[in-house]
Amino acid sequence: MQLTGHNYVAGATSAEGAETFFSVDPRRKERAALPFHSATAAEVDRAVAAAGAAFDEIRHYSSAQIAAFLDEIAAQIEALGDELLDCADRETGLGLPRLTGERARTTGQFRAFANLLREGDYLRAIINSEAPGQPSIRQMQFPVGPVAIFAASNFPFAFAVAGGDTASALAAGCPVVVKAHPGHPATSEMFALALKAAVEAQGYPAGSFSMLQGAGIDVGQWLVAHEAIEAVGFTGSLRGGRAIYDAAARRPRPVPVYAEMGSVNPVVITPGALAARADDIAEGLVASVTMGTGQFCTNPGLVLLQAGEAAQSFIADVTEKMSAAPAGVLLNETIARGLEGAVGQTLRNPDISVLTGGDAIADSDYFCFSNTVMRTSAAAIRADDRLQIEHFGPVTLFVVCDDADDLRATVDALEGNLTSTVHAEADELEDIGDLLHQLREKAGRVIWNGFPTGVAVVGAMQHGGPYPATTAPGTTSVGMNAIYRFMRPIAFQNVPDALLPDALKDGNPLGILRQVDDVYTDGAI
Amino acid sequence: MQLTGHNYVAGATSAEGAETFFSVDPRRKERAALPFHSATAAEVDRAVAAAGAAFDEIRHYSSAQIAAFLDEIAAQIEALGDELLDCADRETGLGLPRLTGERARTTGQFRAFANLLREGDYLRAIINSEAPGQPSIRQMQFPVGPVAIFAASNFPFAFAVAGGDTASALAAGCPVVVKAHPGHPATSEMFALALKAAVEAQGYPAGSFSMLQGAGIDVGQWLVAHEAIEAVGFTGSLRGGRAIYDAAARRPRPVPVYAEMGSVNPVVITPGALAARADDIAEGLVASVTMGTGQFCTNPGLVLLQAGEAAQSFIADVTEKMSAAPAGVLLNETIARGLEGAVGQTLRNPDISVLTGGDAIADSDYFCFSNTVMRTSAAAIRADDRLQIEHFGPVTLFVVCDDADDLRATVDALEGNLTSTVHAEADELEDIGDLLHQLREKAGRVIWNGFPTGVAVVGAMQHGGPYPATTAPGTTSVGMNAIYRFMRPIAFQNVPDALLPDALKDGNPLGILRQVDDVYTDGAI
Repeated sequence: MQLTGHNYVAGATSAEGAETFFSVDPRRKERAALPFHSATAAEVDRAVAAAGAAFDEIRHYSSAQIAAFLDEIAAQIEALGDELLDCADRETGLGLPRLTGERARTTGQFRAFANLLREGDYLRAIINSEAPGQPSIRQMQFPVGPVAIFAASNFPFAFAVAGGDTASALAAGCPVVVKAHPGHPATSEMFALALKAAVEAQGYPAGSFSMLQGAGIDVGQWLVAHEAIEAVGFTGSLRGGRAIYDAAARRPRPVPVYAEMGSVNPVVITPGALAARADDIAEGLVASVTMGTGQFCTNPGLVLLQAGEAAQSFIADVTEKMSAAPAGVLLNETIARGLEGAVGQTLRNPDISVLTGGDAIADSDYFCFSNTVMRTSAAAIRADDRLQIEHFGPVTLFVVCDDADDLRATVDALEGNLTSTVHAEADELEDIGDLLHQLREKAGRVIWNGFPTGVAVVGAMQHGGPYPATTAPGTTSVGMNAIYRFMRPIAFQNVPDALLPDALKDGNPLGILRQVDDVYTDGAI
Repeated sequence: MQLTGHNYVAGATSAEGAETFFSVDPRRKERAALPFHSATAAEVDRAVAAAGAAFDEIRHYSSAQIAAFLDEIAAQIEALGDELLDCADRETGLGLPRLTGERARTTGQFRAFANLLREGDYLRAIINSEAPGQPSIRQMQFPVGPVAIFAASNFPFAFAVAGGDTASALAAGCPVVVKAHPGHPATSEMFALALKAAVEAQGYPAGSFSMLQGAGIDVGQWLVAHEAIEAVGFTGSLRGGRAIYDAAARRPRPVPVYAEMGSVNPVVITPGALAARADDIAEGLVASVTMGTGQFCTNPGLVLLQAGEAAQSFIADVTEKMSAAPAGVLLNETIARGLEGAVGQTLRNPDISVLTGGDAIADSDYFCFSNTVMRTSAAAIRADDRLQIEHFGPVTLFVVCDDADDLRATVDALEGNLTSTVHAEADELEDIGDLLHQLREKAGRVIWNGFPTGVAVVGAMQHGGPYPATTAPGTTSVGMNAIYRFMRPIAFQNVPDALLPDALKDGNPLGILRQVDDVYTDGAI
């Protein structure tokens, strides 16, 4: 496949900017030959204007029409063939098995949303019939308009150009302008080609999708500041997400930013769990911390234990396993330097001790960081919020608490997270209930006797959480409810049946589940 | 009833501040004797800290327990008796009939939420069963934590200390700290007494509710900046709402602000509607513009017509009726001066002509402004966004469009609104569909052959809309869905049945509707 290094603005390639950057193979620290052009302000303007024009058309599309488009995208991604996997592997070093799975997840997301749309209940139709002194009122969900999506580095498929944010925004019926991640520009261009093909095959207006490349922060800032953007989806670092959030809040007309910014994902292990299955937990924890070289927003970065011999021996075991595991490939130099900086900052706290790792590996041929285990006290972490920063890589920090009260006080001091986890035994249930529900206040997902990595794309998934995990704790970026970030309810009062959307007509021609006078029914009125 | 002029901090009266202000009777421009004490920063801190402590307890409460509390609040409001009506009438000049209706709406809101909670489906339980390679995941809605509520001036009951925002936050299971509106401090204190009595009667922790008085902006700024506040509800002016939004966005840990900031509520009247029933529409429009002296966020402030004799005569008729109607009482001096300023600013545009009114009434014994009708062209309003500002009072602006295309172009240039309205006839349906759905993009509620004032408190109501109508167009501040502003989903992965909330247990002991493996059911698993 011949790539161009250009931006895709409403179906046309465009390379007006002088700034270029390159794809780098993290396994060899070698850059590829093709220059990629960062978008200009004019290209951003054109992409958003085209999205606005496209919205005037696609806001009339039925759920069935949108579903066909989503299925087409999945098929077009598959049609890219294994060249996509090879390309992404060269740009990210994530390996073919992982990327093969991630591709299936990515196409699966589009098809899952297509099914949701065909089934139709997602429109959340609510009807109150006319009554004495009260007109008929009927509401349902509608797309908000042009959406800006920021791709992540660590999921080149599932959270990138055609990732879950894009899938849910397109499923909602919104045009999408994606800011691609500079860590994998060639992969991004392949996805842009698949989207372009799907747009053409389904007769969507060209402005329904644009993809902008950019090495720095300018393209993103222009995009978020554009007055025609109605909502923003972002997956990435706290620093990046906060900058986008601040830019959107500063607009004359602010818009919501759904930023998912990662987490330390606290894991509490009870004495009972350690007594019963320390080996299994150690193995699972090390696998979870090192999976994908630790580059997951659900990486278990903070492990809370109660002091004692069992904890001591567990920590030693995890340390040994982490030390023995090979240092994985990091995605790119920015990630490697960021990790070095974050661990370095943490290590400046005198109450932190390094049990293994803690430094970059000198003279390595590939981007990497030593598998790292650190240890501190509960009092230390309560005294310094900075110890709760995310170390985006194969790093975990043990927090050794004096006793159950010390642990509870520490959980109370935790910031917001995507997940929190408890390992405990059946005979501890009575004591553990309070702790579990204390942990729920700190996260969007609470895991029992498992590990936070691995996020199922299902209706009940909640991938979100209080700040700094996200900027919108009431929403999720994974699972079917992700669509509601890009929809809003509109009510029709006294509107004649002929002018109502099908979902709200008396006859319920879509046959969807509706709340009619406070009762759920899929029947006609 | 003996009022104190104090703040109510977690059940105790407190008046540590030196700044005081007074209740003013708008019908006489006379201030009452009792000084009200603006809260101090320390009082704000205490109120929020107590709310945080209360949340540790009430987050364990069942829906049934919360429902009993809401019913108790309704009963305690009723127990205030007609002294409440007299007090509010003295402070707002709204009149006893209106206030009697508003009280019923206010107690009705609490009881409607109580019913919602008892019925239980609002928890939005979603369950995905364990499957090969996928753990059990179950999610439901939980309260977010302490909420700050800003009371409005124009609804001393329904959008104030115990208004819809407070009702929905308490229904969600959140403690509430209300910043009372300085326009009706005595009424606010009466509600605080009712809330305090309900808290005590139901054994709620004292910190579940606090009410802070404040003449200026300091109390609100301290409140929103407090790190333990998790969400903010606001009803009031664009300027006030934006200041609160900005303050929350600047926090180290930003939180969502649900600000409802009013609107111009465009009304389109087709030639067919004018031909068929100009008199009725004129009468309805004047009633809607002057109702409550025009002090409604749904006041129809912008009326779009196509030029012609019928329009000319309709405008003359409305002008005559507006001119003949008595000038109503405005809530307070701030509202009166604000209205004078807003109309004055609009009149500086040379393309605006005044058909009647346009000025304050000299030497009036009461706060008022002349009923005002203005007129401009479609081109003028498209050329100057400032003509879309809200004139909060008995004021409307006719926009005379050259033809249907000119009208469509003008609708396209409209900012976000709470409502948009079309008056049209049955034989125009085919032409009007596009316009109706163009208007839907500009509002949260679309009204057919009616007027925007009058907001039914029902499940299908959407009282929201794109900025500047609100800061969160995906949410509503009226109707049952208002509760979701103060809840967030939390998922439980692989958690034993004994530790799950009742709503998520296998047996479905609450008997609520749940989405189980993508199918809605109220059965057990």
